[in-house]
Amino acid sequence: MSREICIYQEFLTEAHKDQIRAAAQAAGFTPHFFTLDQFEEAKACVQHCEVLYAHSIDLLRAAPATLQWYCCSFAGVDPYCQDPSLFANPDCLLTNTNAYGVTIAEHVVMVTLMLLRRMPEYAEVVRSRGWRSDLPIRSIRGSDFTILGTGDIGSNVADRLRGMGAASIVGVSRSGKPHSSFDEVHPISQLDAILPSAGILVAALPGTPETVHLLNRKRISLLPEGAYVINVGRGSLLDQDALADALNSGHLAGAALDVVVPEPLPQDHPLWDARNLLLTPHVSGNLTLGYTCDRAVQLFCQDLLNYAEGRPLAALVDRTRGY
Amino acid sequence: MSREICIYQEFLTEAHKDQIRAAAQAAGFTPHFFTLDQFEEAKACVQHCEVLYAHSIDLLRAAPATLQWYCCSFAGVDPYCQDPSLFANPDCLLTNTNAYGVTIAEHVVMVTLMLLRRMPEYAEVVRSRGWRSDLPIRSIRGSDFTILGTGDIGSNVADRLRGMGAASIVGVSRSGKPHSSFDEVHPISQLDAILPSAGILVAALPGTPETVHLLNRKRISLLPEGAYVINVGRGSLLDQDALADALNSGHLAGAALDVVVPEPLPQDHPLWDARNLLLTPHVSGNLTLGYTCDRAVQLFCQDLLNYAEGRPLAALVDRTRGY
Repeated sequence: MSREICIYQEFLTEAHKDQIRAAAQAAGFTPHFFTLDQFEEAKACVQHCEVLYAHSIDLLRAAPATLQWYCCSFAGVDPYCQDPSLFANPDCLLTNTNAYGVTIAEHVVMVTLMLLRRMPEYAEVVRSRGWRSDLPIRSIRGSDFTILGTGDIGSNVADRLRGMGAASIVGVSRSGKPHSSFDEVHPISQLDAILPSAGILVAALPGTPETVHLLNRKRISLLPEGAYVINVGRGSLLDQDALADALNSGHLAGAALDVVVPEPLPQDHPLWDARNLLLTPHVSGNLTLGYTCDRAVQLFCQDLLNYAEGRPLAALVDRTRGY
Repeated sequence: MSREICIYQEFLTEAHKDQIRAAAQAAGFTPHFFTLDQFEEAKACVQHCEVLYAHSIDLLRAAPATLQWYCCSFAGVDPYCQDPSLFANPDCLLTNTNAYGVTIAEHVVMVTLMLLRRMPEYAEVVRSRGWRSDLPIRSIRGSDFTILGTGDIGSNVADRLRGMGAASIVGVSRSGKPHSSFDEVHPISQLDAILPSAGILVAALPGTPETVHLLNRKRISLLPEGAYVINVGRGSLLDQDALADALNSGHLAGAALDVVVPEPLPQDHPLWDARNLLLTPHVSGNLTLGYTCDRAVQLFCQDLLNYAEGRPLAALVDRTRGY
């Protein structure tokens, strides 16, 4: 019986499929492609597949204990780590896809500039066909940044801020290990000492048990008066009520959230009306950019060859740690 | 009689005034400071001043023939060049202030990302408390840019796009002289040959007789299907009716205008409703950013010393050429 891969994805072009076919052939595998409207066909197929490339909790749940590797096409795999019962095979390998650094970093640069340059307010001026241009603004050039998370996303953000003349870029990571994109990196255990000088805080952390409500009410109050908070990791990082309070009281000058809890945000949620909040519906890291899609396929193909050769998978996730 | 400077500005801090006082003393001048609510006092003062540092057509018009140098605190001095009768002294020197490259470049990066990432559409989604994230987006990384104008503004834009991974940056200037911030620079006489491949066109040209309606209906139609147009120079560059038509027909994917004709835009102007038009009320280059203000004062003080020593003024404008 030949070794088989079930691929359940919407974003693949014919060129992407050809790339996957070539890598599969080199690795000794047969790929089977399904789009999202072919769930039943994919479910039937995955019963005799060793590898699943998808982003579907339902399809993973339907996979048998013979599944050896689940490659998720998203970067955040928190739903798969929170519920071990999803894997019929407890030893099934889980990989994620770190292809989102570029698109999320461009989102961060955009919303940072929108906040610093008062764009939500100017949008209201234009909406009412008014004309004013006198609001005091700030620039990325000469500003100090603190970035929570120094991985693919955090480092891509740092590189772009550097290119625009940021004065300093401090990283915060679990280990505190130095990284060339950052002026300094501190371990997350020192967060309370760092927050009082975090005037522009960018959060790009995975959703893990350790990061849930890491930015609680007390830590949000530690941020300096007039600080900005930008979150592109997971909504669970923040105490959203405390954030809304800090925005509405004016303690924070603004915030940009691309991730919230829950998504979609309920119609009556207080975040919709929070002052100076730039909300986006989880758009920063989707498979809606050609580069991201190309990179995702490339990373899967590389790890497929690693898998076939018995080498460690580059994107392996520690399911207990959560990233 | 001591040599005197009339300074009629709103943005100066005490630190800025101290800088100007020090430069004036070194140059053998006495400075007189007025805020915008002190027009009559400034008008009385300018009668015996050799230098005027302001941005006021009315005050310039009130200045006598003994005025030798008018330093305008803005970059665009088209109103002063279009009407020679403003200067009682026909040989009065005119300088502008090239302090806006950083702030305008940050504006350009912001609106470029907002267009490529469909932010006006996502803002409407959020405004109606909806939730979707599937609009195809594009990135600065890997994109090709054409920039009209290779001066302080154009080159600051180019450097930032480069830092974000732009694939190519073509400049267009009057002379076509090579510039290190651009992959290549073409003379404006070749514009018709360049436009068909200008998928993202940024215009940062001064308002001169040569640039009025440079982007006329025919040239707008030369842009490729799905192109973007960003204008931070002068509104007179564009045939606005033709631009609105090209947006509404879908020939252009989007545009961002920070400058229009006239400003403010009349309430019934068709640009308010043009499709995928990101309009801002001339906010990109105001004296609303600390760095810009600091740089403006620095440039004035440098040229004050040049003036006192009889050296050429660094920011001298050719009043017949317009920049």
